[in-house]
Amino acid sequence: MTTTTEIRALVFDVFGTVVDYRGTIIREGKQLNREKGLLVDWAAFADAWRGQYRPNMERVMKQELPWIHLDGLHRMALDELLKKFGVTSLSEDEKAHLNKVWHRLQPWSDAVPGLTRLKQRYILGTLSNGNVGLLVDMAKFSNLPWDVIFSAELVKAYKPDPHAYQMAYELLGLQPQQVMLVAAHAEDLHAAQKVGLRAGFVPRPLEYGPNKTLDPIPESAFDIVASDFEDLARQLEV
Amino acid sequence: MTTTTEIRALVFDVFGTVVDYRGTIIREGKQLNREKGLLVDWAAFADAWRGQYRPNMERVMKQELPWIHLDGLHRMALDELLKKFGVTSLSEDEKAHLNKVWHRLQPWSDAVPGLTRLKQRYILGTLSNGNVGLLVDMAKFSNLPWDVIFSAELVKAYKPDPHAYQMAYELLGLQPQQVMLVAAHAEDLHAAQKVGLRAGFVPRPLEYGPNKTLDPIPESAFDIVASDFEDLARQLEV
Repeated sequence: MTTTTEIRALVFDVFGTVVDYRGTIIREGKQLNREKGLLVDWAAFADAWRGQYRPNMERVMKQELPWIHLDGLHRMALDELLKKFGVTSLSEDEKAHLNKVWHRLQPWSDAVPGLTRLKQRYILGTLSNGNVGLLVDMAKFSNLPWDVIFSAELVKAYKPDPHAYQMAYELLGLQPQQVMLVAAHAEDLHAAQKVGLRAGFVPRPLEYGPNKTLDPIPESAFDIVASDFEDLARQLEV
Repeated sequence: MTTTTEIRALVFDVFGTVVDYRGTIIREGKQLNREKGLLVDWAAFADAWRGQYRPNMERVMKQELPWIHLDGLHRMALDELLKKFGVTSLSEDEKAHLNKVWHRLQPWSDAVPGLTRLKQRYILGTLSNGNVGLLVDMAKFSNLPWDVIFSAELVKAYKPDPHAYQMAYELLGLQPQQVMLVAAHAEDLHAAQKVGLRAGFVPRPLEYGPNKTLDPIPESAFDIVASDFEDLARQLEV
């Protein structure tokens, strides 16, 4: 493990790492089933919605589509999925509200206490493909104590594009090795390491649901491996 | 006064409006006099340092200089002023530390309590010509509870350029009239109003020192005039 004494800022992947999108969408979706008399399988819906995120984002990065922020990509996917799942009874306002479920995602139970401890000693930022408005709304809704919002939207480049990671140390006026990306996803961490950031791995075994077997990840590749954000705070000596 | 019911976000001018740069520079400067046996008049130094900010910024906006963030402009001015004030005994580390006094500026006494109340109901952001790293360091140092850091650096355009104001509502996904700029300076507020933002005027009569007579400002031009941030919170019904 690399020494962590130089670290000044921790930047976090958000979807899956800080918040439980799948659980939140299922919870809000079941409520919508009751209110509107729908019979949607919201676990399947959540998986399909998140599943469309990567191919749509890649179309933007290949310039097959112009820059579209994440709210826009979510809405493109939502409109397709509502058709596919046979939901025809939602008004425009209801669809807009449902699309904003991504602004109301709830954190894993260790996230707020862990971040609150870490904030005493480190600059805490998002480093997310979510757009700025989404990340700010989510922070207000779920009490996430960020010091700064770094978003793909600021550089119009989605992770794993290097510009998305470089933004964090450039805008903070720090050296790359003074910044650690914290994420539940190996690909994200490897892309951060390529531009010189440190890597903190926090597995989130329930991200994709309770019955998924995950590929093993070789943990020696990371500067820190922590079981959750409270463990991360302990290891980072807060 | 315009109705304020639609307001979702308050964005703040920082230097002079939230923090007392003059008082902080004088305090740190006097300490430096004692440590280094200097005889600098730090009130005069602070006024001269701040005085160079606008012409240097204007040279950037006229493209006589490439983009330089505020830390860089402060350093250009500092190097000149140290010569002018006859200070030759500072090491490079000491000069770099002194230049970062702008990262350690202390808030007016009402600022943190007022912002803390306002944060319960509104998104709070900076909207400052300070660079991101400066604003984040200052927030950590002085406990300023921002939800989001908007900086001229993000759009490489200094206020009063319209792009600097448009960034706030565009990145939050709001309408211009849902965002209010809070500032102690009429010119800043008028530029914000030109792109559709609301304007909250909070005079800071001590910004330029205790013995200055300020030009009267026609207060009817603004949506809100508040005596300080606590009064602003009362008027915005927090």
